[in-house]
Amino acid sequence: MSPFHVDTVDLLRRTPVVVSALLVGVPEAWTTTPDVAGGWRPRDVVGHLISAEIDDWIPRAERIVAEGTSKPFDAFDRFAHVERDVDVPLDRLVARFGALRAQSLAHLDELVADEGDLERRGLHPSLGEVTLRELLATWAIHDLDHVSQIFAGMAGSHDADVGPWKAYLGILLRREDPAAIPG
Amino acid sequence: MSPFHVDTVDLLRRTPVVVSALLVGVPEAWTTTPDVAGGWRPRDVVGHLISAEIDDWIPRAERIVAEGTSKPFDAFDRFAHVERDVDVPLDRLVARFGALRAQSLAHLDELVADEGDLERRGLHPSLGEVTLRELLATWAIHDLDHVSQIFAGMAGSHDADVGPWKAYLGILLRREDPAAIPG
Repeated sequence: MSPFHVDTVDLLRRTPVVVSALLVGVPEAWTTTPDVAGGWRPRDVVGHLISAEIDDWIPRAERIVAEGTSKPFDAFDRFAHVERDVDVPLDRLVARFGALRAQSLAHLDELVADEGDLERRGLHPSLGEVTLRELLATWAIHDLDHVSQIFAGMAGSHDADVGPWKAYLGILLRREDPAAIPG
Repeated sequence: MSPFHVDTVDLLRRTPVVVSALLVGVPEAWTTTPDVAGGWRPRDVVGHLISAEIDDWIPRAERIVAEGTSKPFDAFDRFAHVERDVDVPLDRLVARFGALRAQSLAHLDELVADEGDLERRGLHPSLGEVTLRELLATWAIHDLDHVSQIFAGMAGSHDADVGPWKAYLGILLRREDPAAIPG
């Protein structure tokens, strides 16, 4: 495998461990607030990560390998978790995400037989042509993006507790004004 | 201990585990980029967290308990890590942070004998009167804020790899424009 491939899979393996260290057994006081008004609570983020394991990354990688650019990716439902996960406890969602991620990475190993496969092209329904390499990088950055969102929701849950220190805490200020600069 | 106290210590215990899951042994390709231009790489963030364990949280909690509002907190050097950590490998910084955090929490246990202690007041040199409770909440949110910064740097390291998907990845767009809205 190329360094890019090894490094990206390394990060993809870490995400469920990080999410688990952050959320399994955490007191509920930390997990009931969304990242921004109208945004996602930690459980919504984990639900979305689950949806992407099921419907996004591997199905799209398979489509690239099987069809190239002749058939665009299916659309991905960013809100599939809302009804599906309504009664599932957070700890169970985290465990499910970990299990699905392990399956996805095993599947990826089968799909990328040699490094040239990463240059294969597929067709994104809105973005146009993309490579399997870009899909792999996007998968990892999507993890980082959404786990950050968990941090913002957790911080927001204790917004009222920090008193005047809020002026120094960008993670709180940006929930109200994305361009805020801490003092 | 009050639920607030229990919940906050729970999060403070998690942070070194999360940072370790994210960074120990991670390929260097993920860790050489700052969160924003002129910002901090993951190793700078961990260095700053180390500085805060040494010079900020516990010394300020001690000052509150010993002096109340009669003597303001000492100033905290946000850049103490720059020279101190220049030759220290990232994995060693992460381990050092974990050891210091464990010591800090043991020390906190001695400082907060009963819940009334959390209402004790101290004097921040810029922000004025603050409570020990606010200090404790700020400690936890400061963790979340800076670990988010690690995620932004890691994402930034692979900015060039995601191709057209960048338009959907807020964590990349915000490194260039804090108010950017992903497509």
